[in-house]
Amino acid sequence: MSTFEAISQFSRMLKNLDQWLQIATAHAQRKGFDPEVFTQSRLAPDQYPLVQQVQSACDAAKYGAAYLSGKKAPSHPDTEKTVGELRTRIQTVAGYLDTFQASDFAGAEERAVAPPWMEGNSVRGDRYLTRIAVPNFYFHVTTAYAILRHNGVGLGKRDFIGVRSWTDFGE
Amino acid sequence: MSTFEAISQFSRMLKNLDQWLQIATAHAQRKGFDPEVFTQSRLAPDQYPLVQQVQSACDAAKYGAAYLSGKKAPSHPDTEKTVGELRTRIQTVAGYLDTFQASDFAGAEERAVAPPWMEGNSVRGDRYLTRIAVPNFYFHVTTAYAILRHNGVGLGKRDFIGVRSWTDFGE
Repeated sequence: MSTFEAISQFSRMLKNLDQWLQIATAHAQRKGFDPEVFTQSRLAPDQYPLVQQVQSACDAAKYGAAYLSGKKAPSHPDTEKTVGELRTRIQTVAGYLDTFQASDFAGAEERAVAPPWMEGNSVRGDRYLTRIAVPNFYFHVTTAYAILRHNGVGLGKRDFIGVRSWTDFGE
Repeated sequence: MSTFEAISQFSRMLKNLDQWLQIATAHAQRKGFDPEVFTQSRLAPDQYPLVQQVQSACDAAKYGAAYLSGKKAPSHPDTEKTVGELRTRIQTVAGYLDTFQASDFAGAEERAVAPPWMEGNSVRGDRYLTRIAVPNFYFHVTTAYAILRHNGVGLGKRDFIGVRSWTDFGE
């Protein structure tokens, strides 16, 4: 898979995540509870709640695109408190990812990526993508999905993958 | 990322999953409960328990490698009932993945992939990998991780990613 395809897939998954939040909101309204309860729900007391899972998924995708294209990532302070604000954050980041073109990632596989948290270390772009950005991104989107499922939201694997019809896969 | 790198990453993540199960077993023994309780634990009543999450992760990885290389996948009937048997299944599949070489995936990106569940439809290999195999694989390993975390096992993001030192990333 090309770097561009991998980044496009982040955008696709963020749009799925946005849909799950819409379904969760409708579920809460049907059951008569405040959808904002989801934002602080978590699977373990020392794991991030939904708010930070969504923020982290957005950041994994955004920084992946920025580092691998050699661009500066836009700043998104983690101020979201409501499901609506999380959905706006997701849509903003998906929109940012959608500005990239295949040519932006020329040479990305060999590019030295050195995010601040690596404290001076660097890693080749292809390894950064495969071994760090992709697992980290899916960690946070899947955990967000799991928090919603654990709290009774009716989601299934087709919602996760985002399958609406076979034409979604381009053939 | 090359198809070969993506398949190698599945092997790396399966080895991480094997480690989480080892840590979970030690946790249960320390707390004085039967580690086999984990095997039937789940996050929602209509979601797979740990056993099937692990089997599904193994299958996503195995079929990804087989379909993209045009080989026939080995059969692994879903008979595991214990953590020990799950660990053997994981190690078997990681071992299978480790038999592949970069040359096995020549032309994989353009290869038409038509798994039985697609009911006669097919998808290009690169789209299959990026949009189906990778999300599906990470869905199951992350949910397995979440089941353990939800049940009190002391795991963190470094265990998930499998970071032991920066040299794990090859630089």
